[in-house]
Amino acid sequence: MNVLFSAPDDEWDNYGDLLPRAFAAAGIEAEITHSMAPEAPERFDYIIYAPSSEMKDFAPFTNVKAVMNLWAGVESIVGNDTLTQPLARMVDPGLTEGMVEWCLGHVMRHHLGFDRDVCRRDAVWDYYVPNLARERKVTVLGLGELGQAVSETLSGLNFQLRGWSRSAKEIAGVDCHSGEAGLAEALAGAEIVVLLLPLTAATEDLMNAERIALLAPGAVVINPGRGPLIDDDALIAALDSGHLSHATLDVFREEPLPESHPFWAHEKVTVTPHVASATRAVTAVGVIAENIRRGEAGEDFLHLVDRSLGY
Amino acid sequence: MNVLFSAPDDEWDNYGDLLPRAFAAAGIEAEITHSMAPEAPERFDYIIYAPSSEMKDFAPFTNVKAVMNLWAGVESIVGNDTLTQPLARMVDPGLTEGMVEWCLGHVMRHHLGFDRDVCRRDAVWDYYVPNLARERKVTVLGLGELGQAVSETLSGLNFQLRGWSRSAKEIAGVDCHSGEAGLAEALAGAEIVVLLLPLTAATEDLMNAERIALLAPGAVVINPGRGPLIDDDALIAALDSGHLSHATLDVFREEPLPESHPFWAHEKVTVTPHVASATRAVTAVGVIAENIRRGEAGEDFLHLVDRSLGY
Repeated sequence: MNVLFSAPDDEWDNYGDLLPRAFAAAGIEAEITHSMAPEAPERFDYIIYAPSSEMKDFAPFTNVKAVMNLWAGVESIVGNDTLTQPLARMVDPGLTEGMVEWCLGHVMRHHLGFDRDVCRRDAVWDYYVPNLARERKVTVLGLGELGQAVSETLSGLNFQLRGWSRSAKEIAGVDCHSGEAGLAEALAGAEIVVLLLPLTAATEDLMNAERIALLAPGAVVINPGRGPLIDDDALIAALDSGHLSHATLDVFREEPLPESHPFWAHEKVTVTPHVASATRAVTAVGVIAENIRRGEAGEDFLHLVDRSLGY
Repeated sequence: MNVLFSAPDDEWDNYGDLLPRAFAAAGIEAEITHSMAPEAPERFDYIIYAPSSEMKDFAPFTNVKAVMNLWAGVESIVGNDTLTQPLARMVDPGLTEGMVEWCLGHVMRHHLGFDRDVCRRDAVWDYYVPNLARERKVTVLGLGELGQAVSETLSGLNFQLRGWSRSAKEIAGVDCHSGEAGLAEALAGAEIVVLLLPLTAATEDLMNAERIALLAPGAVVINPGRGPLIDDDALIAALDSGHLSHATLDVFREEPLPESHPFWAHEKVTVTPHVASATRAVTAVGVIAENIRRGEAGEDFLHLVDRSLGY
């Protein structure tokens, strides 16, 4: 069997050793080729693919049974018309754990309001009593793999959790809403909002001025999802007016965030460099190996992308 | 029945309304007197007491059945020889929740290493992949009410949890150690240490140079317990040498922390103004009412202090 690993060198540095070991553990005998411009494309059975790869034409890979994306997000390749093979998203347990931890860390940070202590350089003893999580209204938009895990964790820590998704969901401990009307119900009076929606035509600019206005005065927006979920100008206007007290953003319309972007210098914006949703090679290789095992055994692939929905 | 509320005005501001309501809910008929120098002390049945009260002589209260401390810590009154009545610590569910949340917030903060993003003012996109909690070694010293709750929460979030206490304990998901030999086992290689010990002669300066040296290089010390648990000079030396990467301190030998104290200006120290362990009046009044109900019904008081142990 021939497997193409089509990704830049920095990905290969992470996967080059772990992938053969995961294949061996799963009983898969395969030759792995690391290339973004491989010879004889018709010989490959599977492609492991990073959207940062320079390879954009999947048409020559006439015998490929599945393309396995190394990243959770597929929006930059789902519109590639040459990609007609089954496409699997990465659903890495390590990525989910990392996302839960990043969201939890920043929710706790804003909940406790500890920035002023962490960044303080003057000797001022300024006592206050932090609110309890049971008094704090948190809303998670998007209840897929990641949004559900984040919601369940926050709910388990006593936060008042509301969630929203396109189609109706039920999650224990989470007040779930869905559809257009449900979105306003989920956002009304929320003090902390976490964006974990996929990027589609329907979710672009979802956090616009009108929806931001539904949040509690002094609310915080946390975006570890995708940059275009937010109307940047509306966000900055709400921060400047004081309606929002802070935004913690991990993802942006352009990444790395350009030096000239106003988010960098805005005192109410925290920029983190797209670290919330990192795939961990140590766990991701097991997911890839399992999907190849399934393909060879004639079983259904896991985590296939629905092209009509875009995720 | 006569109940004395002996605490400064700021405490009365929090409790003055809630306490009569909690008494009414528990079926207790009592006259509550707010004073730090009451007339006719022999008329009182119970004292609700804040160690910040100016009242230090309990001898005249010859008919008092119990003194109920408003704070979790009793070290400043346990050595008061005039206090011969049963003394109850405050074990407030709101305090425990708040402590868990404060500890969780700062553990997540150090685990994810997000200070550089939160306090950054230059436009630098500096990518890194945060470790997962399952890879992070956290040790909690002290496994009483608070330490146990903090350990269980962190363990439930996948951290590698070790705990230590004077006497042996068993907590699901926590690798528990005890006694002098157990302390070195609990500290060896720990990356984040949380101090939740009571202050006694045996725990003063417990985190000294020798014990700090047992921690992993780059470790973080978090102290929401009591200031004197740490040898301040040894801590600063370990921060300066780079053996410790940070200390987040909520409690100090002198509070408020004096302006001249080196902790304020040290770039590797975060000072928070004793906010981790705040009693929440809304939940504490129920604990006080329950103890008075027990006293009147001839049942054992909850949360009595063992004078020989000092907590």
